[in-house]
Amino acid sequence: MPAFWDQYPAIQTQIDQTRQMIDRRVHVRNSDIEAAILELSNAGGKYLRPAFFFLFTDFGKDKHTDPERLTKIAASLEILHMATLVHDDVIDDSSLRRGKTTVQARFGKDIAVYTGDLLFTVFFELILEGMNGTPYMAINAASMKKILMGELDQMHLYFNQEQHIRDYLRAIAGKTAELFKLACKEGAYFSGADESVVRLAGRIGYHTGMAFQILDDILDYTADKKEFNKPILEDLGNGVYSLPLLFALEKNPAAFKPLLDKKDQLTVADTQEIADLVIDHKGVEDARNLARRFTEKALADIKRLPKTTSRKYLLQLTNHLLKRKI
Amino acid sequence: MPAFWDQYPAIQTQIDQTRQMIDRRVHVRNSDIEAAILELSNAGGKYLRPAFFFLFTDFGKDKHTDPERLTKIAASLEILHMATLVHDDVIDDSSLRRGKTTVQARFGKDIAVYTGDLLFTVFFELILEGMNGTPYMAINAASMKKILMGELDQMHLYFNQEQHIRDYLRAIAGKTAELFKLACKEGAYFSGADESVVRLAGRIGYHTGMAFQILDDILDYTADKKEFNKPILEDLGNGVYSLPLLFALEKNPAAFKPLLDKKDQLTVADTQEIADLVIDHKGVEDARNLARRFTEKALADIKRLPKTTSRKYLLQLTNHLLKRKI
Repeated sequence: MPAFWDQYPAIQTQIDQTRQMIDRRVHVRNSDIEAAILELSNAGGKYLRPAFFFLFTDFGKDKHTDPERLTKIAASLEILHMATLVHDDVIDDSSLRRGKTTVQARFGKDIAVYTGDLLFTVFFELILEGMNGTPYMAINAASMKKILMGELDQMHLYFNQEQHIRDYLRAIAGKTAELFKLACKEGAYFSGADESVVRLAGRIGYHTGMAFQILDDILDYTADKKEFNKPILEDLGNGVYSLPLLFALEKNPAAFKPLLDKKDQLTVADTQEIADLVIDHKGVEDARNLARRFTEKALADIKRLPKTTSRKYLLQLTNHLLKRKI
Repeated sequence: MPAFWDQYPAIQTQIDQTRQMIDRRVHVRNSDIEAAILELSNAGGKYLRPAFFFLFTDFGKDKHTDPERLTKIAASLEILHMATLVHDDVIDDSSLRRGKTTVQARFGKDIAVYTGDLLFTVFFELILEGMNGTPYMAINAASMKKILMGELDQMHLYFNQEQHIRDYLRAIAGKTAELFKLACKEGAYFSGADESVVRLAGRIGYHTGMAFQILDDILDYTADKKEFNKPILEDLGNGVYSLPLLFALEKNPAAFKPLLDKKDQLTVADTQEIADLVIDHKGVEDARNLARRFTEKALADIKRLPKTTSRKYLLQLTNHLLKRKI
């Protein structure tokens, strides 16, 4: 992904400013926590949410009025994302995130819990400074709750072999698509774009977020471990059954049952066997088709946007996302 | 403490309404989390912060204008308190809180982390509904950060035998006194009290909070285990050295060193020996004297408040706090 921004220097500059804003905002007396956050913010994350935010500021007439304010809002989006990542890693006991040791693996769960909490407070400060008095304060509160509900839905489905694909979709709508939707809407709204563009932005963000999460889950089954920078199929042992598996499971539950019944006792060989079964049952193919449908919805809406440079980049980026390998 | 409110039915009614508001606000699809929160909100907590809030609403001319709004703000204070308790218990690995099994001991740390996060989002919703557009949004953000910094300061001092009493005071100023201060100030402000009363309220809250935390820490050394409803001196094995120990340690570090050097390997006998040493070195007495000084500061300010029923109750309550045994 980072390579993508190289082709769009304006966005890269804005992302750099967002990262600098985050780094300035996380100074605390506790050096472990500060180090943990700085490592996270500089670990080569894609800053996709701020990027979508900035792409949508291109549709407003006020996009140059208060760049500092826009950077704060962009930073609030990435910080909310980081907060949820840190707490998710505590829950999943993940050892790697963005190719680096996670906060909880490196500093322990105590630091990780408080690091997430600190990020929530910085998020709160940034939106207060950036949007107090606007309807977006309440929209942010509602989004924060939906994101958390998505995480809870996912947790509720752990190790459940009978979950339906709509359960998965509801969980990722919260945990992933909601923040993409918020990022796009805020970009349009805070640059003074028309109400119709704000509405399109929300839909584009939502559909892009759905496609993005499905593709992320597909990569668990297809990516090269070294390139992908996170442990492949680690989710499986944690009871998180994502779309490729769910499509395959729907077709042949009996084939998976003896393996999945082992729950968190899966061996590496078991995991490999599940992955092979998923591919044999066309789980990856089905998931990719569903991701394509979400992408097509996003593309159709992008085409309805006013013809700006950003519109062109959104088309490119959306097509690029569908093809990403890492 | 609950017995105290029996003598003040108006406050008891407002506390009941606050608890009902909290119970209504925490409905989620995840039944474990909902059960965890309902148990916490109904576990016989003292609701001290809402109580102080309501006592200070008595000084404003608008106290009857919008009772629903006041209840929301009172609920936001207790919910922020609950959120920090739940995450603290994850960090301390505590098994008991308010005499009941903690969320993390009963439901596991996953549920506890998300329960705290959910409480943060409900806190955010409530203050938005109760005070959006007022300067107290930013004051709440700042308070939330100070509370967290207090927790981090405390964590930073774990097992540190060379910490100074001022380090302890700084940590409790954040983790405890800040929220008492906020509760009192908000009560005065949102009932339309004079600016001078709001200022006094802040000081009274701060000094009461400092005294309250010191007395809480003293109870670890003096309370009967059954009555106190939490494991006595559990903090010691977690590396939290509170004021009685710090006063004693200052007088005779050598006496404590062999014991404290065992860090989290303290036996029950070691803990008892430390407790005895603390009492022999008048650590409890010194701590009680410092708590008395904070209480006297609060009392002096309470006496400067307008003569209302609440003023009388604040005097009684503050004196009562100093004498509490559980």
